[in-house]
Amino acid sequence: MNFSDKLNGAMEKNNSLLCIGLDPDPAAMPAKIDVIKFCKAIVEATSDLVCAYKLNFAFYEGLDNGLEAMRVIRSAIPSHIPVIGDAKRGDIGNTARMYARTIFDVFNFDAATVNPYLGYDSVEPFIEHWDRGVFLLCRTSNPGAADFQNLPFVKDDKQYRLYEIVAIRAEQWNKRGNIGLVVGATNPAELKLIRQNHPDMLILIPGVGAQGGDLAAAVQNGVDKYRRGAIISSSRQIIYASVEKDFAQAARKAAAAVRDEINFRRPGVPPQG
Amino acid sequence: MNFSDKLNGAMEKNNSLLCIGLDPDPAAMPAKIDVIKFCKAIVEATSDLVCAYKLNFAFYEGLDNGLEAMRVIRSAIPSHIPVIGDAKRGDIGNTARMYARTIFDVFNFDAATVNPYLGYDSVEPFIEHWDRGVFLLCRTSNPGAADFQNLPFVKDDKQYRLYEIVAIRAEQWNKRGNIGLVVGATNPAELKLIRQNHPDMLILIPGVGAQGGDLAAAVQNGVDKYRRGAIISSSRQIIYASVEKDFAQAARKAAAAVRDEINFRRPGVPPQG
Repeated sequence: MNFSDKLNGAMEKNNSLLCIGLDPDPAAMPAKIDVIKFCKAIVEATSDLVCAYKLNFAFYEGLDNGLEAMRVIRSAIPSHIPVIGDAKRGDIGNTARMYARTIFDVFNFDAATVNPYLGYDSVEPFIEHWDRGVFLLCRTSNPGAADFQNLPFVKDDKQYRLYEIVAIRAEQWNKRGNIGLVVGATNPAELKLIRQNHPDMLILIPGVGAQGGDLAAAVQNGVDKYRRGAIISSSRQIIYASVEKDFAQAARKAAAAVRDEINFRRPGVPPQG
Repeated sequence: MNFSDKLNGAMEKNNSLLCIGLDPDPAAMPAKIDVIKFCKAIVEATSDLVCAYKLNFAFYEGLDNGLEAMRVIRSAIPSHIPVIGDAKRGDIGNTARMYARTIFDVFNFDAATVNPYLGYDSVEPFIEHWDRGVFLLCRTSNPGAADFQNLPFVKDDKQYRLYEIVAIRAEQWNKRGNIGLVVGATNPAELKLIRQNHPDMLILIPGVGAQGGDLAAAVQNGVDKYRRGAIISSSRQIIYASVEKDFAQAARKAAAAVRDEINFRRPGVPPQG
């Protein structure tokens, strides 16, 4: 089964576009719990509410045996829920091949995030894994994103921003149908433009919650004509909803609220009781 | 001691601009030797010939206990030789902070490579480590580099390529003097342009050897007015010079040849006997 089918299956089963970012930061977690137990408890409490989970490598590779913990957490996620390896890698062809093999074959992620700056041969080893998803960073959610991503180019008397060119190339490269884009919720206008120009592409939308992106705008601007095609990712707002013993139930409550708010903003999708 | 002083010390002591990439690929290594023994033997055989070593994370994170192997190898390098963590990371501020902490504090690298696509707040956590070096990807050595890096912008009636804008920003952000640029040896014209416009910036130059970059052009176009300021990095050409038992001595021979060829191409620097 390819990534897109697996994702759509989870979206339908859980009636959800919500992705939870499992980014364990010992400084923010409840005291005296280890990373594996923490993430497993969150997964157990929320796996009927999400369309995907996302694990950012940065939160694992610095811990003792951190990548092994990441592998254990990834394996603990029910097999019908796709898991995105948020690695944002970008390297020359033969090195990108190593990264793709690690993310997809060693850690068994269903999808990966990839930085487009190095161009096609840095992306190709990822998309060659035809059954996995590849999300190219397009317009990211952080304050500095505009520094380069919004630089204007003129081509055939028309102006394009760098992130628009990335999206155009991504669509040209998408021969296997497994490329998506990352567009942050903090940029509603850019998200709207990308959705208008690329009506069929899957968009991973981080930046709601702690980063301040407007959830309603993210949903309205991000979904496709079937009111799907968008993965709304949130991490801190959900996994750190409580730092007490009830953290997993608090995460469930927060996840349900975001899931329902997303559904409320995509008319035609029945609300959950 | 800051990165630049440490680097200049090693350049002077070993009369060398050569950096060896310790990128262990079990498929290319001599049979029946583990990654740690392989890399340690290369370091022992070459540490009087280089100005730096560079470890690319891609070649470690997919191996069993690979990051632990990377840590052991990094620790085995003599303390007066700087070691670059070639991670090419780029993520939003709070996540970039985790990456920077891991690369500099956990693995104790003297410098890191960073992808500029996410802009200033993705770079800032790295440069805040004032005593470490930060190499921003500018014009990379791979075939796809031109896809985005060579896109033309017009500003004040003058045309700039994206990689030129990255270099201009890098110089503006270089308040602590610890930012350098990555410019591949496969692009002599671009390297020359960057050196002309940024006479004082340190440039990390990969792409000689297996990737086909012209060594003579890389040296002539890359060094600064003191015939330093450039780190010429080679990996496969040196570490896989032989796949037999003599691999370490073969690596030494290959490294000495590249070191001497580099010095031959920077007139004023006396050849080594």
